[in-house]
Amino acid sequence: MTDHVVLSLDEARALGLDILRAAGLSEPHAQAIADVVIAGQRDECHSHGLYRLPGVVHSIRAGKVDPQAVPDVVDHAPGVVRVDAHFGFSPLAFALGRPKLVEKARRQGIAALAINNCFHFSALWPEVEAIAAEGVVALALTPSHSWVAPAGGTKPVFGTNPIAFAWPRPDGTPFVFDFATSVIARGDIELHRRAGKPLQEGWAIDGEGTPTTDAEAALAGAMLTFGGHKGSALAAMIELLAGPLIGDMTSAESMAFDDGARAAPCHGELILALDPAVFLGVDAPRHIDRAEKMFGAIVEQGARLPSQRRYEARRRSLAGGVSIPKPLHDELVALRPT
Amino acid sequence: MTDHVVLSLDEARALGLDILRAAGLSEPHAQAIADVVIAGQRDECHSHGLYRLPGVVHSIRAGKVDPQAVPDVVDHAPGVVRVDAHFGFSPLAFALGRPKLVEKARRQGIAALAINNCFHFSALWPEVEAIAAEGVVALALTPSHSWVAPAGGTKPVFGTNPIAFAWPRPDGTPFVFDFATSVIARGDIELHRRAGKPLQEGWAIDGEGTPTTDAEAALAGAMLTFGGHKGSALAAMIELLAGPLIGDMTSAESMAFDDGARAAPCHGELILALDPAVFLGVDAPRHIDRAEKMFGAIVEQGARLPSQRRYEARRRSLAGGVSIPKPLHDELVALRPT
Repeated sequence: MTDHVVLSLDEARALGLDILRAAGLSEPHAQAIADVVIAGQRDECHSHGLYRLPGVVHSIRAGKVDPQAVPDVVDHAPGVVRVDAHFGFSPLAFALGRPKLVEKARRQGIAALAINNCFHFSALWPEVEAIAAEGVVALALTPSHSWVAPAGGTKPVFGTNPIAFAWPRPDGTPFVFDFATSVIARGDIELHRRAGKPLQEGWAIDGEGTPTTDAEAALAGAMLTFGGHKGSALAAMIELLAGPLIGDMTSAESMAFDDGARAAPCHGELILALDPAVFLGVDAPRHIDRAEKMFGAIVEQGARLPSQRRYEARRRSLAGGVSIPKPLHDELVALRPT
Repeated sequence: MTDHVVLSLDEARALGLDILRAAGLSEPHAQAIADVVIAGQRDECHSHGLYRLPGVVHSIRAGKVDPQAVPDVVDHAPGVVRVDAHFGFSPLAFALGRPKLVEKARRQGIAALAINNCFHFSALWPEVEAIAAEGVVALALTPSHSWVAPAGGTKPVFGTNPIAFAWPRPDGTPFVFDFATSVIARGDIELHRRAGKPLQEGWAIDGEGTPTTDAEAALAGAMLTFGGHKGSALAAMIELLAGPLIGDMTSAESMAFDDGARAAPCHGELILALDPAVFLGVDAPRHIDRAEKMFGAIVEQGARLPSQRRYEARRRSLAGGVSIPKPLHDELVALRPT
C-alpha cells in the first residue's frame, strides 16, 4: 500500500497555487487552474486532480502555452459568444466567457460559447456544473489528440472527445455527467502504464490494428470508442462541433500542432446553454418536477446517478480533506519554490 | 426465402398515400407521413419504411391521434421556435417548424425547435438531413416509451431515446447518424419476436431483471442502453432535453398516457440547429475542409461513415425501386380502399 498524505482543501489549494505561480502563470490563470484542479481532487477524480499539475508545468516549459495570455471575449452573434484564449489554458477562458453565455441563454433561450486557441487539461464537469449553478442546462464538448480509431478502422482519427452535461436540480446538486467517448480516458491508460497493469479487452488496438491489453502498445496504437459504432458516431460529432464548426483544429490537427512536445492538447471547445426559464415560463416548476420523478425512478431501483459518487466524495473531502499518494506529493513539493 | 414485391418509388408512395388518406389523415399529414415512410423504404431502413404504416393506422383507430390536427408554429423566443402538434403525427409538425428553425439559426447562430403534444413513429434522420440540406448543422432528440433500464438498474425508466445528427458536406450528401441509445431499436426486438429469433446477449433483461435472449421476455422486461453507464447517461440527457426542458412528457409519462393502446408514443422533440456560416463567416470553406479531411481519414482506412450504407441503398432504390416482403405488401394492400 502506497503511503498517502492528507491535506485540507485550503492546504491543497495553497500548494497548487505556489506551483502554478512558480511556473510563470499570471494570477488570473493560476487562480482559475487551482479552482478546477482542487475541484477534481475534492471530488476524488484523481486523474483530474493535483496529478495534473506536473503536466501543466511541462506544457509551459515545452514553450507551447502562453502562461500570461489574456483571453478576448467577443460578442459574435445574438446566440454566440466567442473567447479567443490566445494559446493560454482553458479554465480562465471559460471563466471569462461563462457570464456572457448565461446572459445570452437567458435572453435567447439557447446560446453557444466557442473557445478557440486554447490548451485543455481539465475535466468538463466543473464547467457544466458552474452553468447549472445559475439554473441553466449545459452541454460541453471538446476534441483532444487523435488517439482513438473509428469503428471498423485500425488507425487513430478521433480524440478521447469528452461530452459533459449538467441539469440544475431544485436541491442544489445538479445531475451531471462527463465522459470520454473513448472506452476509457487517456489518463487511465497512462495510470495503467505507470502501475504496470494490463488493460481490459476492448479498450485498445496496437500499431497494427490488433486488439491489445498492453498499455505501451495501446499508447503507440489506438484506443477504441465506447459502444462500438454509436460511440464512434458521437466522437465524430464532437470533432465536428468543437472543431470545424467553431473554426478550430480537429484532434489530428491538434496532435500535429503539438509536434511531439507532449504538451496539453491545443484545440477548441463548444459549450451550449439552454435556459429552462425561457423554454417553460411560469410552468417551469411543474416540468422540473417531471425530471425529479425520473431521477427518483432511477435511484429507487438501486441504480446510481452519474454524479452521485462524486458528490459523496465531495462531502468526505469537505469534512476531512484530500488524500494523495506520497510519490505524487513529493513530485508536487519539488515543483514548489523553496 | 420470403417472396418479395418490387415497387417503383412512385408506386410505393401512391400505395402509402392511399392508405394514409383512407385512415382519415388530412392531406398535409398524409403527404408529410408519405415523405418520411418512403424515404425510410428508399434507404432500406426497413423498420422505418412501409412497415410502419399499419402502426400509423392502428394509432388513429385507437383514438389517440388526431388525424386532422393543425400544428401551431409559435415564435417563442429569439432562439426558440415551438410547434404545438395538437396530438397529431410528427412529420407535419416538423415540416412546418423547420423553416423558422433554420431562419433563427441563420440569424442567431444557434436555435432550437421544440415540438410538443406529438405522436412519433418515424426515424429522425430525415429531419436532420433536411436541415443539413439547407447548409445548417442539426441535432435531434426524442424520448419514447419507458422500455429501457438505467445502467445498474432492473426496471425500465428511459425510452429508446434516439439521437440524430447531420453535418452538411460540400458534395451534397451530409454526414448523418441516427441511433437509439438502447442497445438496439425497439422495432428490431419486435422483428426478432415476429421471426422467432433469439436476441443477442446484452440487449435485454426479463421482468425480474435477469439477462434474457427471449424477445417476448425482453418486451415484458426491459431493454438495456448501449455502452453501459455512458449510454445510460445519454439516455437520461435525452429524456431531460426533449421532455421536461420543453414542457413535455418523459418516456414513463408517455407510456402511462398510452394506457395500453399500443399507439405510437406521444411526447416532445427537441431539434437544435447551428449555422456554420454564422460561426465561421468568410473562413467557412477553410474550416469545412478540415471536416472533409477527417471524413477522408476514416474512409481511407476502410472504416464506414454512419450514413454510407443508407446512401448506397438510396442509389439502388432510385434506380431499381424498393423490394418489400410479400406478407407486408398483402397487409398494406388490405389497408388500401378498394
